[in-house]
Amino acid sequence: MNVTQALISVSDKRGVLDFARELSTLGIKLLSTGGTASLLREAGLPVTDVSEHTGFPEMLDGRVKTLHPKVHGGILARRDLSEHMDTIAAHDIGRIDLVVVNLYPFQQTVAKPDCTLEDAIENIDIGGPTMVRAAAKNHGNKDGGVGIVTDPEDYAGIINELKANAGKLSHQIRFALAVKAFTHTARYDSAISNYLTALVTNEAGDVSLQTYPERLQLAFDKVQDLRYGENPHQSAAFYRQPGAAEGGVAGYTQLQGKELSYNNIADADAAWECVKAFDHDTVASACVIVKHANPCGVALAATPLEAYKKAFATDPTSAFGGIIAFNGEVDRAAAEAVSAQFLEVLIAPSYTADALELLASKKNVRVLTCPLGQPAGAFDYKRVGGGLLVQSADEARIQIADLKVVTRRAPTEAEMRDMLFAWRVAKYVKSNAIVYCKDGMTVGVGAGQMSRVDSARIARIKADNAGLAIAGCVVASDAFFPFRDGLDVLAQAGATAVIQPGGSVRDAEVIAAADEQGIAMVFTGFRHFRH
Amino acid sequence: MNVTQALISVSDKRGVLDFARELSTLGIKLLSTGGTASLLREAGLPVTDVSEHTGFPEMLDGRVKTLHPKVHGGILARRDLSEHMDTIAAHDIGRIDLVVVNLYPFQQTVAKPDCTLEDAIENIDIGGPTMVRAAAKNHGNKDGGVGIVTDPEDYAGIINELKANAGKLSHQIRFALAVKAFTHTARYDSAISNYLTALVTNEAGDVSLQTYPERLQLAFDKVQDLRYGENPHQSAAFYRQPGAAEGGVAGYTQLQGKELSYNNIADADAAWECVKAFDHDTVASACVIVKHANPCGVALAATPLEAYKKAFATDPTSAFGGIIAFNGEVDRAAAEAVSAQFLEVLIAPSYTADALELLASKKNVRVLTCPLGQPAGAFDYKRVGGGLLVQSADEARIQIADLKVVTRRAPTEAEMRDMLFAWRVAKYVKSNAIVYCKDGMTVGVGAGQMSRVDSARIARIKADNAGLAIAGCVVASDAFFPFRDGLDVLAQAGATAVIQPGGSVRDAEVIAAADEQGIAMVFTGFRHFRH
Repeated sequence: MNVTQALISVSDKRGVLDFARELSTLGIKLLSTGGTASLLREAGLPVTDVSEHTGFPEMLDGRVKTLHPKVHGGILARRDLSEHMDTIAAHDIGRIDLVVVNLYPFQQTVAKPDCTLEDAIENIDIGGPTMVRAAAKNHGNKDGGVGIVTDPEDYAGIINELKANAGKLSHQIRFALAVKAFTHTARYDSAISNYLTALVTNEAGDVSLQTYPERLQLAFDKVQDLRYGENPHQSAAFYRQPGAAEGGVAGYTQLQGKELSYNNIADADAAWECVKAFDHDTVASACVIVKHANPCGVALAATPLEAYKKAFATDPTSAFGGIIAFNGEVDRAAAEAVSAQFLEVLIAPSYTADALELLASKKNVRVLTCPLGQPAGAFDYKRVGGGLLVQSADEARIQIADLKVVTRRAPTEAEMRDMLFAWRVAKYVKSNAIVYCKDGMTVGVGAGQMSRVDSARIARIKADNAGLAIAGCVVASDAFFPFRDGLDVLAQAGATAVIQPGGSVRDAEVIAAADEQGIAMVFTGFRHFRH
Repeated sequence: MNVTQALISVSDKRGVLDFARELSTLGIKLLSTGGTASLLREAGLPVTDVSEHTGFPEMLDGRVKTLHPKVHGGILARRDLSEHMDTIAAHDIGRIDLVVVNLYPFQQTVAKPDCTLEDAIENIDIGGPTMVRAAAKNHGNKDGGVGIVTDPEDYAGIINELKANAGKLSHQIRFALAVKAFTHTARYDSAISNYLTALVTNEAGDVSLQTYPERLQLAFDKVQDLRYGENPHQSAAFYRQPGAAEGGVAGYTQLQGKELSYNNIADADAAWECVKAFDHDTVASACVIVKHANPCGVALAATPLEAYKKAFATDPTSAFGGIIAFNGEVDRAAAEAVSAQFLEVLIAPSYTADALELLASKKNVRVLTCPLGQPAGAFDYKRVGGGLLVQSADEARIQIADLKVVTRRAPTEAEMRDMLFAWRVAKYVKSNAIVYCKDGMTVGVGAGQMSRVDSARIARIKADNAGLAIAGCVVASDAFFPFRDGLDVLAQAGATAVIQPGGSVRDAEVIAAADEQGIAMVFTGFRHFRH
């Protein structure tokens, strides 16, 4: 069945004029409303107003203009049933074969600083979603149906199809458009529900928005199915959050290598978030090596090569099969050094041409680029049985001015520099985290222990195994020491300075222990649990 | 403004007859359609068909019956604008002040085994959501508006309000109903989008559903705002997944104690999932103590008290401030023992009355009950920067028949029993996980290490610290040994039997190492990574 008549009413007007002109040239009659009708008419296109079409005046400030049998009979009549076709003919209802409607993003309405609740409600579209849903439902079958266009990106393809297919849209195209349309309306109403269920009214009648809506709707777009999940007996897929700001690992581009696995993406995220904590403007190069979701080596240096060598030296055993991230361009020297070890994924903002040339010879290595960026205001999700924990991301960053020296001895400048480095690393190590550092390099990483003393012990053992000296190191602890025993382990290992949140009821005991052993200690005032 | 006329068209007919009768008794005119109209009419209620009301015949198999200005003008006219009221009067459109519409859950339509794509599409409601959305938009203000009822649970409250308030619904009630209505339509279209974007058509034209839709919409209901997130500088909230099967921690009931924190819920989830792995029918009592998302003690015994004592003995240091879970009723003896330590949360399917009486004296302890259950088919989510990893839950459970003995020496019956226990525990320990066990008790838990050898080392150190002997223990490793070094550490510590997935390219080397040292080893054929 040919497309005979199109109804066009769009909020996003990109490309609509050209599209309508092409439709008109193809002999398709145009119905329209409001601003879209004016736009088309001013451009000289023949347009019929919906109110003229229905014979019913536009009334109630436009609230009911399209909610009419002349419109919806024309959309909803089944093209494959002669009874339906006869019925609309008997009622003088013309077929509407193409519906071009998109909705103004509700998130953007309510994001405007001066948007009141009344504005938000007034902006909720009733007629638009109804046409979108009706047309999508009646996308039909091989014998015909309605095309529903909600995305300006589809205009060109539709014109091509109409031209190539004698004015018809194939069932396949109509179905794909319908699928897109229901996602459009689902997300529109989801945004409305998220907004409305976040509103709270105080006793004075003032309305405000709470952070966490009573009913939460989340939406994601699939990037790819994965071969399997965390384990081969689990299925998995990777999704991007539409509209997420640049900077997250989800914005990756894969330049070469095998397909990414579930664990690759999870570990790349850990490595990328950690390496981004070291701003390329203030440190020359940072390199992070992650294994099993924990950094097993982090270092700063003048060049990517030196940073990698130091990061690798922290724990050569664990680095085997790791994920490696850099905070700046990877040059050929770094690429060469990295290629000498077995690695799963390499991630960096960019690579020099000769680095890429070299990496191409290691064709299994997954090489990713990702734009740098620190999206603010993101939320973190943790799944629990039958539910979801939602929290704001841990965006706390320490400044020297925030630190409080609590011991008799103040840290030296070098200790202070290393403590700030160690603290940033500790944020990305699973709790309880104890991180020994020296000269911009991790020396021992104690991760994921149920007891802080054990994290201190394992960090030292790891340093010993790697042949690194702990004497003269600084240490970061991601949360306070509940007792002095943890601090004693650090002191006995030879650490000279400690950075930790403070806040334990036994802080005095811990400070005394530090003073006894000549340790300089600073408090950050906040912790960095990460599980 | 009084409610003068109600339009009723519901899929879920629970209580609708009583509700309509009450409305009618209050002098409210009833409009209705289809099955709802028949139901009310058969009960003797005065009902006007929508087609009679609009003067437009019901046509196209009911596809457009309510999409008419007589209906939508009656819903959408603003009660506070005299122009609107005059307009509808001039067009002989009567106000519809109450819209009672609910939608048949689309998930249930497509869950029917014989539901075809055509059935699914035909079941998509167009008129219903339009009325719901129109009425919700026009819920109005102090000067009047429309009430939209989408949930039978609200019928009683609305009747009470109409009776108490001289036939009016307050703005507050209309607003609350509107908020609920937009959530109803958001979730309806989300289910449609999830279904349609999961459809794939093969070359032969056969349609099937893929596990992961191209566009994923998720929905959650808030249980509570939390005081803060993983750290005090992060905000957080806890959500339940509507319709989740019983058994998850989200189904908890808190019997006493302080407010649950973000970390409490996360750790209670870990403890609860782990303890549920021990079926109360086949083992007498299981107890799990969790700290920082890892089990720091797990044990089986004849009574809850004995199970707790053994679990505690694994790592008394870490148990301090832990989360304790039982797989069966907690009696007074167990409650007394548990209360003697500092604990954050206690979770169990039930408690004896005298146990609760005792716990009441420890009023800070959060005591939770949760129904037992193993919901199948759940999905796990992991947040990454700008995206989401989605996977099917790790539901693999080992059977003795699946195990393959790979060493010269086969395990004894006691070793086999302990290996199965150790393997189940290892599933809940963060990777790399090494778990030493003996006599239904964890003896050393090596968790969260980047190197498997380090997990083996730390598990031994922890056993030593707790004064427990490793000699004669069995060991579970959550993934294979890439080299023989990890196995050598276990053997040197005195372990006699090992359970692990197998599958390393160096399995032969690892088996030889076991044989050399008289160790019995079995392969499970699958791993249990958990990060």
